[in-house]
Amino acid sequence: MALIVQKFGGTSVGSVERIEQVADKVKKFREQGDDLVVVLSAMSGETNRLIDLARQISDQPVPRELDVIVSTGEQVTIALLAMALMKRGVPAVSYTGNQVRILTDSAHNKARILQIDDQKIRADLKAGRVVVVAGFQGVDENGNITTLGRGGSDTTGVALAAALKADECQIYTDVDGVYTTDPRVVSQAQRLDKITFEEMLEMASLGSKVLQIRAVEFAGKYNVPLRVLHSFKEGPGTLITIDEEESMEQPIISGIAFNRDEAKLTIRGVPDTPGVAFKILGPISAANIEVDMIVQNVAHDNTTDFTFTVHRNDYQAALQVLENTAREINAREVIGDTKIAKVSIVGVGMRSHAGVASRMFESLAKESINIQMISTSEIKVSVVIEEKYLELAVRALHTAFELDAPRQGE
Amino acid sequence: MALIVQKFGGTSVGSVERIEQVADKVKKFREQGDDLVVVLSAMSGETNRLIDLARQISDQPVPRELDVIVSTGEQVTIALLAMALMKRGVPAVSYTGNQVRILTDSAHNKARILQIDDQKIRADLKAGRVVVVAGFQGVDENGNITTLGRGGSDTTGVALAAALKADECQIYTDVDGVYTTDPRVVSQAQRLDKITFEEMLEMASLGSKVLQIRAVEFAGKYNVPLRVLHSFKEGPGTLITIDEEESMEQPIISGIAFNRDEAKLTIRGVPDTPGVAFKILGPISAANIEVDMIVQNVAHDNTTDFTFTVHRNDYQAALQVLENTAREINAREVIGDTKIAKVSIVGVGMRSHAGVASRMFESLAKESINIQMISTSEIKVSVVIEEKYLELAVRALHTAFELDAPRQGE
Repeated sequence: MALIVQKFGGTSVGSVERIEQVADKVKKFREQGDDLVVVLSAMSGETNRLIDLARQISDQPVPRELDVIVSTGEQVTIALLAMALMKRGVPAVSYTGNQVRILTDSAHNKARILQIDDQKIRADLKAGRVVVVAGFQGVDENGNITTLGRGGSDTTGVALAAALKADECQIYTDVDGVYTTDPRVVSQAQRLDKITFEEMLEMASLGSKVLQIRAVEFAGKYNVPLRVLHSFKEGPGTLITIDEEESMEQPIISGIAFNRDEAKLTIRGVPDTPGVAFKILGPISAANIEVDMIVQNVAHDNTTDFTFTVHRNDYQAALQVLENTAREINAREVIGDTKIAKVSIVGVGMRSHAGVASRMFESLAKESINIQMISTSEIKVSVVIEEKYLELAVRALHTAFELDAPRQGE
Repeated sequence: MALIVQKFGGTSVGSVERIEQVADKVKKFREQGDDLVVVLSAMSGETNRLIDLARQISDQPVPRELDVIVSTGEQVTIALLAMALMKRGVPAVSYTGNQVRILTDSAHNKARILQIDDQKIRADLKAGRVVVVAGFQGVDENGNITTLGRGGSDTTGVALAAALKADECQIYTDVDGVYTTDPRVVSQAQRLDKITFEEMLEMASLGSKVLQIRAVEFAGKYNVPLRVLHSFKEGPGTLITIDEEESMEQPIISGIAFNRDEAKLTIRGVPDTPGVAFKILGPISAANIEVDMIVQNVAHDNTTDFTFTVHRNDYQAALQVLENTAREINAREVIGDTKIAKVSIVGVGMRSHAGVASRMFESLAKESINIQMISTSEIKVSVVIEEKYLELAVRALHTAFELDAPRQGE
């Protein structure tokens, strides 16, 4: 008999009919004899409706009060599901973040979980109840309601699984697993049976928006096996777990991630003196602009070029900051480009395999795709290319790293 | 500097605009230097929307879970008002029933308040904050969310005023006070400046639905001065308070109440033996039918007639029960009438004045209105008459007891 935490997102509980379907699903699991803790988001659209309401009062709603309002979304769905389960003869009880006691810090709207009291839940599980917990919310030590920030229900699921030492945390979504790349771009993309936490982190942060990054980090830290599944279709989904040495048989590359939300900025002819990188990035960071890739090549004639990428929404602001900096440090010029895309190959397998990067570059060269920037980590190689080549690049790499599914009929 | 508890109902907080108006009102009070605790209902319609949602899952929603859902209504309005106050530069904080800690019993959907922790509120008031509290809800000793039943926000207001020993509990409504009778029936009806708790209880239970009966009882028990005021019009409203001997100058009658929701049942030729009243009313009560007036006259030829009134909705059920009883106890016949109305004169003044009842009967006789039943209490005389005479009777009594306002222009 396993203890499983199941998390259903807003779309999965977006209507009474959907909640009834989730209840059917939970009942089926319960009948297999598993102990179940179910974590729910608010009905899709409800959180936005509540935020809009608050914004009608104030453009910048007071964070503490916003949490009081927004947390009502999950409070409604948990009770509805508990009712739907009891209607099916499945004993169930709902708990808000405060009732469980999911203790968080006091950073309203983006709180972090500090501790979870498992007493009530364990007692209920022992009594044969399914425990339905509000995701996304907690309470600080002074009894103030907090929320974990958008999408935080995944984190609640993982944190509960860790606190309860659950056998698995299942995240139900609108996709049936993690794919080698976006199936809309590569029709041959395949669902992965298994992926490591590290790979998943790289895939998630690069734009495969299946799971919240924080939830994956949390799962990795506490070694909670995570499974991504489709809410209403049957299937094994994708298990995200630690790298158990079986990686010998793993493919070198698990997937191809990409991101077209970035823009590139270059400051040219920067005097090559110590501290110059800080002089460039300090003002960017002070302007609350997040930087992704950073590349600085070796100096030439005592000057160097410094390039970094930011989110496209921040491009104009970053450009302005950078032009000021250029004047101050006597750099030659600032140039920028918004028509770029980042493509990455991700896989723990590349640790033990040389030549992965060169195979990537070769494959892109064959398609005459010019590489503008390169950045690498232990399990990832990312390149920035011209945006119009994105789909071509992803498909070429997917084939080059033998990720394509066998064609139907073959 | 006074401590005032103000309660605003669902209509008063029915939209963002209304909440802004309430914030303006609260700010004005605050600027007068009063300490304020504001109790809110859910936006009008919201509680029904939430109950409907629960009913879509189950015809008979599990009471514990229904409370989890329904309590979100006030949770939204309190935070919106707190935000609206802060936007106006008025420090404010919102609390749910659980956060205050309004401890109730565990009777979900109709819980009773056992105790209120005033620590947090007192600390906030001391710090200069307006405290905004969710009405209608509390928490039991096991941390389960409870609700006090529909309209229970009045009770929350009064209970808070009692716990805080507030100088006044102001109930803001859509009427500007308590009237001598329904102004829709008698255009000369006047707003009362003052009324006693007992009178208010008689007025309220007889159909002047300005306040929840429970709230008035509570206010009377703890001697909390209650004031009924209009949410958005200026005016002194009506103060409901104890009878402070000033009643010497009070009018004999404070108001005329009426009720057309009742039906009358008579069982005739009942053997006049001990225990017969129980034999008749026992089965009615066992069928969960509430009885209002009961009249039994002296026996005649060893049989008697027994008459009582029930809510019109219960008339058919009561008739059936009574016909069974009639067969069992060998009564002559059962007759019923749904076309009746009850009219009552209410006033603590009648305690010290003889002849009040006869003046009432004389006034009705002058209009040729036949009295079918009479029932009296210390501060009330009620009669049942044919329904079609209701307005005539109320107007005649209003004039007879000198309650008419001077006509405009006189």
